Amino acid sequence: MSSPIRRLLLGNPIPTDRTEDERVGPLGGLALFAPDAMSSVAYGPEEVLIVLMAAGTAGLAYGVPIGVALAALVAVVATSYRQTVQEYPSGGGAYAVARENLGVLPALIAGAALLTDYVLTVAVSVASGAAAVTSALPGLFQHRVELAVACMAVIMLLNLRGVRESAAAFAVPVYGFITCVLAVVLVGLWRLASGSLEPLPDPSLETTSALSLFLVLRAFSSGCASLTGIEAVANGVQAFREPRGRNAAWVMTCIAAVLGTTVLGVSVLAHRLNVVPQPDETVLSQIAECIFGRSVLYYIVQGMTALILILAANTSFSGFPRLAAFMAKDGYMPRQMLNLGDRLVFQNGIVLLAALAGALVVAFHGEVTRLIPLYAVGVFTAFTLSQTGMLVHWLRNGGPAAGARAAVNGLGALCTGVVLVVIAATKFTHGAWVVCLLIPAMVVGFRAIWRHYRFVASRLSLDMAPTVQPVRNLRLLLVGGIHRGTLEALQFIRTEGPDTRAIHIEVGGEAEPRVLREWARWEKEIPLEVVPCPDRNLAGTLVEYIEAEQRQGGYDYVTLVVPEFVVGTWWESLLHNHTAFWIRFALRAHTGVAVVSVRYRL
Amino acid sequence: MSSPIRRLLLGNPIPTDRTEDERVGPLGGLALFAPDAMSSVAYGPEEVLIVLMAAGTAGLAYGVPIGVALAALVAVVATSYRQTVQEYPSGGGAYAVARENLGVLPALIAGAALLTDYVLTVAVSVASGAAAVTSALPGLFQHRVELAVACMAVIMLLNLRGVRESAAAFAVPVYGFITCVLAVVLVGLWRLASGSLEPLPDPSLETTSALSLFLVLRAFSSGCASLTGIEAVANGVQAFREPRGRNAAWVMTCIAAVLGTTVLGVSVLAHRLNVVPQPDETVLSQIAECIFGRSVLYYIVQGMTALILILAANTSFSGFPRLAAFMAKDGYMPRQMLNLGDRLVFQNGIVLLAALAGALVVAFHGEVTRLIPLYAVGVFTAFTLSQTGMLVHWLRNGGPAAGARAAVNGLGALCTGVVLVVIAATKFTHGAWVVCLLIPAMVVGFRAIWRHYRFVASRLSLDMAPTVQPVRNLRLLLVGGIHRGTLEALQFIRTEGPDTRAIHIEVGGEAEPRVLREWARWEKEIPLEVVPCPDRNLAGTLVEYIEAEQRQGGYDYVTLVVPEFVVGTWWESLLHNHTAFWIRFALRAHTGVAVVSVRYRL
Repeated sequence: MSSPIRRLLLGNPIPTDRTEDERVGPLGGLALFAPDAMSSVAYGPEEVLIVLMAAGTAGLAYGVPIGVALAALVAVVATSYRQTVQEYPSGGGAYAVARENLGVLPALIAGAALLTDYVLTVAVSVASGAAAVTSALPGLFQHRVELAVACMAVIMLLNLRGVRESAAAFAVPVYGFITCVLAVVLVGLWRLASGSLEPLPDPSLETTSALSLFLVLRAFSSGCASLTGIEAVANGVQAFREPRGRNAAWVMTCIAAVLGTTVLGVSVLAHRLNVVPQPDETVLSQIAECIFGRSVLYYIVQGMTALILILAANTSFSGFPRLAAFMAKDGYMPRQMLNLGDRLVFQNGIVLLAALAGALVVAFHGEVTRLIPLYAVGVFTAFTLSQTGMLVHWLRNGGPAAGARAAVNGLGALCTGVVLVVIAATKFTHGAWVVCLLIPAMVVGFRAIWRHYRFVASRLSLDMAPTVQPVRNLRLLLVGGIHRGTLEALQFIRTEGPDTRAIHIEVGGEAEPRVLREWARWEKEIPLEVVPCPDRNLAGTLVEYIEAEQRQGGYDYVTLVVPEFVVGTWWESLLHNHTAFWIRFALRAHTGVAVVSVRYRL
Repeated sequence: MSSPIRRLLLGNPIPTDRTEDERVGPLGGLALFAPDAMSSVAYGPEEVLIVLMAAGTAGLAYGVPIGVALAALVAVVATSYRQTVQEYPSGGGAYAVARENLGVLPALIAGAALLTDYVLTVAVSVASGAAAVTSALPGLFQHRVELAVACMAVIMLLNLRGVRESAAAFAVPVYGFITCVLAVVLVGLWRLASGSLEPLPDPSLETTSALSLFLVLRAFSSGCASLTGIEAVANGVQAFREPRGRNAAWVMTCIAAVLGTTVLGVSVLAHRLNVVPQPDETVLSQIAECIFGRSVLYYIVQGMTALILILAANTSFSGFPRLAAFMAKDGYMPRQMLNLGDRLVFQNGIVLLAALAGALVVAFHGEVTRLIPLYAVGVFTAFTLSQTGMLVHWLRNGGPAAGARAAVNGLGALCTGVVLVVIAATKFTHGAWVVCLLIPAMVVGFRAIWRHYRFVASRLSLDMAPTVQPVRNLRLLLVGGIHRGTLEALQFIRTEGPDTRAIHIEVGGEAEPRVLREWARWEKEIPLEVVPCPDRNLAGTLVEYIEAEQRQGGYDYVTLVVPEFVVGTWWESLLHNHTAFWIRFALRAHTGVAVVSVRYRL
């Protein structure tokens, strides 16, 4: 993208040494990580009632106990994760914990489950946000896919602009929604207690199914959708300012407290107000209407709910790129996921997430509710693996109060494991089987990527490399006709004994990079110059260097030699950065610069 | 396109020295060039009656005189063009004649008119062919655009396979249609004369418009659509085997004879059989039904008519690429139009024509009948300019019987000129105004292209070039890390005093190309080798040469230096062949070959 448009959309590049400034404190962290978890209040308790309704009034009576169970589960999971974020302040969540304590396979399973979950979250949340808009403005219905994609593009751009800017942008709607939903619950419970709230008339329900343990369990596992998004904090600890672990733990506690309170409150209010799910009005809307009437307050609650449903996507934009980068560092994802963009975010992960979720929205024509059952299986797989990993961690490493901590994580692992079995059993035919096929396929893909990188590394290794020897080179000038261009090329090809120099562009910010020491071992005559590159724009720095040499060094030509290795298949070539291509692109309009790729077949 | 698929679709490449074998005789020429002209029988007389019908039975009575006038016009135009093709056997038609005798501006106007006409012909004929298919099979109606594009793709592929193959493929339907339409006319007239033919009942027509001179003239100019396509032979004389002029003249006579006979015959039969245009049945179909009943013969006539309507597109595929190449040779079209493809056809012109016509079909959703009025203006502009040019030619050059010949072309110019004024006047508001805007715009474009090429040539000219001087070159090795790839590049950059050689790949087939003599003037040390390239595949020949040097010459590396010039804007860069890009692409998987573009800013 050309520079002025890029700057307009993304802002000015931020130097690498300002990484710490680009992190967020606890308040910003809440704005970044709460939306996904909080948005589930809007649909979690409702999912429970939809299942229970099949067993009539007797079934609906189980709404409150299930609400209590869900709130308890939130408390257990959050307590367990608080320990995780404090013990693993470098982030990575379930993937990192499983990798260190359980081995590679469980880690890859957790990674696959979480990546899938992030993509689904984005697709479902922007599509349901667009659905909320088009039910208010039916004229836009035919443009719902474009609308969803446009919402996603805006969220993507905000995330590409950096962590701090997106936290600032999302703070108002997130805190607004939390205030609204707490107000509904607290005002509702207070008015219930004071007897000033009129319940709806007893609904006459048709009983279509007997009340059974399976039905109650299925209702419970539907309600577990409320817990999705709670793990995002653990994957994104790196986004927090120091002390990272404590900041992240605080945010985790806040989310859990609000989530538990509201899930429980909404369940109680729904039961006491005789609210049952309606096809054309949500449970939360009915409760808000009972409490506030059709006042301004009611419309504010509805507006905030629509907004938080769209913003749930934002949490994934914080989680997915960090997890992908974490896995890329270990060689399980393409290494482009590690590239830090202009604004110190993992820009390729952000764009990949938007592309995958956008493809889902387009492929399903914006009707993504069918994807919802797929969620919970992945999330609870990650929960269970993460807590089990923590249990192993405490048992293996000990430390102060290791026994108590192991007990907390063990309880977490047990609870989430049981819930996972319940979800898988009750939801298998409702779509959970897709996830059971997808996750192993993804694990196979991760391992193939890892094998490829290991193969490349072995072929590039210098352990058995020959010494540098003189070789024969034929210089061939292609002549189409004799004109000025030919003479230019002839001048170039006749230069003898040109000045030769090697340069290394230091993107990482190290003052004395390892490459300098290694160069000295292999080459004595040709000097290696290290050029700093604080804005991580390798091609741009190179162009500036070459221009300076041509202007000040008096060189008519610069011949730039770029080593490039050739891989065997198209999918392997997707796993590399193609630096030579981008350099050639950046230099496309420069005359006097010849780019030479010296290719090395692995 | 990769080679096996390319060979399957296009066949094996044909060497340049077999050009003469790839030309057609008079019978093949008729198959190539007749469809466009012949297909107009299917709609030309009908267009006349549609206009006349507005004035009721009194109006329809003018059908026969107009038919006589059209047949006379066909005779005049064909006689006139017979002289053109014999005098200009290198082809180019109206453009070439106007360029030589009238100057650049009239030539460009004629070229613009003809190119527009070719594109319109393809779009209209494939779309009306698709319409004929979908009226028989209404289930395909929603796929009419894809159907039209698919028909065009088949015709395009046949033309890319070469002149001889497409002439062979189209011979059966073309001769079939000629036989059918002659049978209808001759059997019809004979049965009329013998009184065995029953006319239809007198139609009761509503008179919506008074019979006026303007109405009759408008009917006549609608009928002039019958003459479109007659000029294609003159533009494609190069496609004929020697003696070209005589072969082309013979084909021209055949087309004119059949066209004149059938236009006149259909007009007479329509009048005598009381046939009037119906919205759901064509005039030709009604006449055939009167004569043959709903017998097998009737359905053969209908099938052949549908086929010839689609094949009318093929004539344009013979004319457009040749005219574009002719104009490219003079610098008025992109020089890619001159590239001879694998099968000795101007492949870029063929692809460009298909792309433009395809875009029209898609843009108009396959409803291209609105474009029909645009035709005749362009065609008669070209006719008039061509005949006027011939008149000037005879007056200026003299020669045997120059006076008589000047009279023939003068009469042609006068008739077509008068018809052009009539068409422009009567059809201006019906769409002819679009052509009156388009042609000047195209002329401006042609001149911009010509100015660009003249600018490039002046900048590449050696008239004021400096002598070849030693220059300073900085060789820069980009080091990302120290690995085997880096060592390979280091070996490469350390080669000193490499062997240097220049090569010229001779695509034109000359044994002693001019470039050899010029090279000797500019360079004494570096030898220039000329490599023949009979299949005109420059990149392929180069790859073979380099591979042979690496295998047999013992070179570890080949550095290929390609001079390339940089133009200022994107549209200018469309006017060049981008040889460097295609060479790089052909060598993308070869290791040990470094391609160096030495760019020269104009």
